[in-house]
Amino acid sequence: MMQRIRPLVAMFLLVGCFFYQLLNAQIADHSYKIAIVIHGGAGTILKANMALEMEKEYRDKLTEALNTGYKILKDGGTSIDAVEAIINIMEDSPLFNAGKGAVFTHEGTNEMDASIMDGRTLNAGAVAAVKHIKNPISLARMVMEKSWHVMLAGDGAEKFAQEQGMQLVDQEYFKTERRWKQLQQIINQDSKRDDSLKLERKKNPPSGKTNDSHGTVGCVALDKFGNIVAGTSTGGMTNKRFGRVGDSPIIGAGNYANNNTCGVSGTGDGEYFIRLNVGKDISDLMEYKGMTVKEASQTVIDKLTKLGGTGGVITLDKDGNIAMPFNTSGMYRGYMDENGKPVVEIYKE
Amino acid sequence: MMQRIRPLVAMFLLVGCFFYQLLNAQIADHSYKIAIVIHGGAGTILKANMALEMEKEYRDKLTEALNTGYKILKDGGTSIDAVEAIINIMEDSPLFNAGKGAVFTHEGTNEMDASIMDGRTLNAGAVAAVKHIKNPISLARMVMEKSWHVMLAGDGAEKFAQEQGMQLVDQEYFKTERRWKQLQQIINQDSKRDDSLKLERKKNPPSGKTNDSHGTVGCVALDKFGNIVAGTSTGGMTNKRFGRVGDSPIIGAGNYANNNTCGVSGTGDGEYFIRLNVGKDISDLMEYKGMTVKEASQTVIDKLTKLGGTGGVITLDKDGNIAMPFNTSGMYRGYMDENGKPVVEIYKE
Repeated sequence: MMQRIRPLVAMFLLVGCFFYQLLNAQIADHSYKIAIVIHGGAGTILKANMALEMEKEYRDKLTEALNTGYKILKDGGTSIDAVEAIINIMEDSPLFNAGKGAVFTHEGTNEMDASIMDGRTLNAGAVAAVKHIKNPISLARMVMEKSWHVMLAGDGAEKFAQEQGMQLVDQEYFKTERRWKQLQQIINQDSKRDDSLKLERKKNPPSGKTNDSHGTVGCVALDKFGNIVAGTSTGGMTNKRFGRVGDSPIIGAGNYANNNTCGVSGTGDGEYFIRLNVGKDISDLMEYKGMTVKEASQTVIDKLTKLGGTGGVITLDKDGNIAMPFNTSGMYRGYMDENGKPVVEIYKE
Repeated sequence: MMQRIRPLVAMFLLVGCFFYQLLNAQIADHSYKIAIVIHGGAGTILKANMALEMEKEYRDKLTEALNTGYKILKDGGTSIDAVEAIINIMEDSPLFNAGKGAVFTHEGTNEMDASIMDGRTLNAGAVAAVKHIKNPISLARMVMEKSWHVMLAGDGAEKFAQEQGMQLVDQEYFKTERRWKQLQQIINQDSKRDDSLKLERKKNPPSGKTNDSHGTVGCVALDKFGNIVAGTSTGGMTNKRFGRVGDSPIIGAGNYANNNTCGVSGTGDGEYFIRLNVGKDISDLMEYKGMTVKEASQTVIDKLTKLGGTGGVITLDKDGNIAMPFNTSGMYRGYMDENGKPVVEIYKE
């Protein structure tokens, strides 16, 4: 009996192996190129003003973030996990204006905004003006995945965080010497301008926008399943007042993702990014006008320049092509090249 | 001498008159057709459930708003003045979920959002989660015109209002019997659902969205100078929690204006309007794909339906063409026809 079955078993095993290989090949064929692009803020960033040691700190941290995210994607992880992990690293560093390194408001508090968007479902989560959240991007993800809402603001957002089991942190956690000095400096500058409190549009933009004391961190990732996720996190503008909300938590402005087109994270003068709907505009130029991700990104940065705003974007399309245009003197930025090597850049050239 | 000059003077007068007429004709030729379209919210609005008296109240108030705005435009006023005046009328009425008629949050407070956008400059102003502002659309206009910012939230926005000389009102002002009953009813419904507090996406949308206790007011106007302005104001969702912000204060989502294309004001499931960037998408379909305002508006409402959201939009292009598509059983809406007569509609047919 056993002897008659043996060849049959062998045949089944052979056929099984064949289909298994075929299936694997199919999956490999349908798996997408993985890709990551990140930024740590754009602004007046000049090599002449940057201490070598400081530059190294930025380069090292951006490299660490890229390597961490790339490992997740390489191991078959999802773009949302990669984006969250990367932004967490930048939020936990005092170098960038997000999380730990968040700038101070006029009142001496830290108020952070963040958002995340999933290009597959167009689901999104955003938080605005949170004060006790160590990693605002993680709370934004929670809003997307655990609530029916897209955007939660202020105390309400923190109440939601607590109900979801997230630990709040004391405002002391965000207090860094560098950011505190920046606030004092700007308050001092403003007090010398007699019309400082009037906030007259154009004539008197708040000082926060004219130096390095603002900024944002962001990441767009593409996983092997073809899903694009974009995330953005910020501490806003130094010396901001009146509960100002910038573009970072605004879906379609400072953050956007759509598997059909691209993912976008922006950094710069938030007001202009909102008025131009920067993220959605780049996506629509690709979808409706057939532009490449590079053409669309540059087109919208040109619109930003024309309208009088400064800043930059990082973008990534469904084939892994990236763009990183900006109209300032520098933007902390990086991506993984064809060979899986991190490339980090800071200045214009 | 005088006799020789006389015919010359006559000739000059004649030629002068001719050019004066020509100039006038030219100005008339270059002045745009004025137009207005308004909404007072979309949702489950069925003739069978509507008392005749109530229907008349809605029709009268929408007609009053249209007439007021039209008079401003007819007299050569600007679209921004018309939009503010129209929305003020709807905010001051307890019929609509905005200003006086704002719904209650879970905590029994009233938290309002509003935004306004100028299609000529792409300037915009927005306020979120304000509690003591009688006319949030007027504060949004103030943010646009008197600050460098686009969006202010919560207490900060109210502080700005006070600095600008705007009187705050007590929360008592917004307390209406009808809205209070709606809150109790929904809290009662939710308490019967054991998972009500988890706010699980899809499986358990907050009750606020499933009946008439949400809504928005909005207006788009075109003045004789060719400027399109869009404004939107809302009390959000009954029983809303966690500082939820909807689409009404999000530029490009629930409100958008661009002189090159159109103005848009939306009403419905705010979360879906944010994810689809409804306002900007309609504008981009016109600008980048050459759609008419009717085609673009319907296309985006179809996307909304496909994604699972409900609601509607009012839109108006630079030639005064309007569209008012929605996917609910009704939407309070109105416009001025070719002869300057108000047309008000409520139900699907």
